[in-house]
Amino acid sequence: MILTVTLNAALDLTYRVPHLVPHSSHRVREVTERPGGKGLNVARVLGALGFRTTVTGFAGGETGRTLRALLAADGDRGSGESGEGRGVGKGAGPGRGAGTDGGAGTDGGSAAVTDALVEVAGPTRRTVGVVDESTGDTTQLNEPGPHISPEEWEGFLTAYRGLLEQGVEVVALCGSLPPGVPVGAYATLVREARTAGVPVLLDTSGEPLRRGLAARPDLVKPNADELAGITGTAEPLRAARAAQRRGARAVAASLGADGMLLVTQDGAWSAAVPERLAGNPTGAGDSAVAGLLSGLAEDLPWPERLARAVALSAATVRAPVAGEFDEQTYARMLPSVRVRGAETP
Amino acid sequence: MILTVTLNAALDLTYRVPHLVPHSSHRVREVTERPGGKGLNVARVLGALGFRTTVTGFAGGETGRTLRALLAADGDRGSGESGEGRGVGKGAGPGRGAGTDGGAGTDGGSAAVTDALVEVAGPTRRTVGVVDESTGDTTQLNEPGPHISPEEWEGFLTAYRGLLEQGVEVVALCGSLPPGVPVGAYATLVREARTAGVPVLLDTSGEPLRRGLAARPDLVKPNADELAGITGTAEPLRAARAAQRRGARAVAASLGADGMLLVTQDGAWSAAVPERLAGNPTGAGDSAVAGLLSGLAEDLPWPERLARAVALSAATVRAPVAGEFDEQTYARMLPSVRVRGAETP
Repeated sequence: MILTVTLNAALDLTYRVPHLVPHSSHRVREVTERPGGKGLNVARVLGALGFRTTVTGFAGGETGRTLRALLAADGDRGSGESGEGRGVGKGAGPGRGAGTDGGAGTDGGSAAVTDALVEVAGPTRRTVGVVDESTGDTTQLNEPGPHISPEEWEGFLTAYRGLLEQGVEVVALCGSLPPGVPVGAYATLVREARTAGVPVLLDTSGEPLRRGLAARPDLVKPNADELAGITGTAEPLRAARAAQRRGARAVAASLGADGMLLVTQDGAWSAAVPERLAGNPTGAGDSAVAGLLSGLAEDLPWPERLARAVALSAATVRAPVAGEFDEQTYARMLPSVRVRGAETP
Repeated sequence: MILTVTLNAALDLTYRVPHLVPHSSHRVREVTERPGGKGLNVARVLGALGFRTTVTGFAGGETGRTLRALLAADGDRGSGESGEGRGVGKGAGPGRGAGTDGGAGTDGGSAAVTDALVEVAGPTRRTVGVVDESTGDTTQLNEPGPHISPEEWEGFLTAYRGLLEQGVEVVALCGSLPPGVPVGAYATLVREARTAGVPVLLDTSGEPLRRGLAARPDLVKPNADELAGITGTAEPLRAARAAQRRGARAVAASLGADGMLLVTQDGAWSAAVPERLAGNPTGAGDSAVAGLLSGLAEDLPWPERLARAVALSAATVRAPVAGEFDEQTYARMLPSVRVRGAETP
């Protein structure tokens, strides 16, 4: 299975309003709720691709209860849809024909996400995305998250070690830290994964990323700003090399409309879709992480992992619902992704 | 006891952000949650004044559970503070000296609010007030509320009739209707109260107010816009007379900074505080309703009820927390409220 860690999980609310006018009152036309936080978003994409995925992190309070109920309901729907054949390799993929999937953890359909969240006393945070229907733009409000006690953090570490012994193919550490969790938390979790012999992907920013790098994760996935922030270098390839020197074995940087850049110990590649895509970039980074993880779990060559990440990212930008990916676009994009060797400038 | 009805109760969230910029992402610096919806706000003010108050309406889902837990916690705090002597008559009031309170339902301190909300399947709505700390202004987002089934509405009517038989001095029907509740709901509830011999105050707007008026409530409390909306007359005294002709026995109109206008079968009065007040008007209307109800429960003369409503309203505008009232301001304002006879223009 694939394991994703979301220490600051969220109940994501989306409010649709006809027109957002600051300092006035609005009737919300439509409310949607779903499990949120980067690791949970990644798991949803992996589940849709047919990979068995377990999520851990913290959940608490009534918001945590709602989040877990939604996760269970998603799982029920996912299992019910397994006949739809939403496998990674379906009809697409470099060197892979329709129906040739069946790699680690896939069953050729969507898979339920297993809930291994750890209960805490404080309530899970909410995020509110206010969609202005007149422009399509979103205004985002993110609560800070519950305070995690030292005992709760220790409890999580015990649960995490237990999960790593249950046949994890790859683990992803995703997102911000809630108050109370040590800033070096990801460094600790990277070391635990390495001790257990489980490949580890880190997707966070700022000081938690800086500290996590020093623990030598197998892969980090910063965006251009995050990469520049920790390396002081705006040029992506130079910055990725700098992140490698700081400890990452490989660096996959998402560069927005310019696609992605991947630097490993075997080489460097850049990849992009051949067309500019209009749409909503929310969740594109999480879909890229899901693409990388799926390729890691199936032990594909690096360029194929990168192609999946780029195609899933593009299919997410094009999806009508923020954070979902459009399967048709994914199937169409995957064979068209151009992967090229990247030269040091 | 005083009974307040809130058919569309809410979990009120307040988010403080340093500066609200539409179409960007914000970290919320501080989150507060409290029970909301007009009738629950009215009950909180009545409880602080020492009046025994029961709240009914609908609650459901995890948000409803949170709302009820907060209500119970408020009650615990309220009882603990009873030594502080937050009685209505404390040190103030036309013709009333310090310590002379002890009217119906008061004990001279704060009183717990009794929860008689009716459980429904749909989740209680949230409202989100986003406070921009750079300006102090609030952007309000109100969810529509749960869908109420015909069976749930019938269940509420049965519970409401039962409550009206339990020694209710006055009942207030407050706020908007959730989806599924008949638009004539307030007319039905007014008739039930009249059948039970319980005086009834109606505070709503639009079609529910229009229909409710026809059932002859004892008192309605529209603001200037609501009054103009149902009567087609912008001049307040003329509009209040028109609302009387449509069925209200008395009309108390809140006119913002101009105070309030009261028209009854005995006469007409206007009242205001002698100074212009800067502050946050959120909840001022609900505090006015609490002032009117407390005066009705104690069978005070109409001008004193009006004075209480105006003083509580002003003390709410001046309070540091939106929707709370400032006790010191209330004590200072009450004797200074100028009540004058109002002439037909």
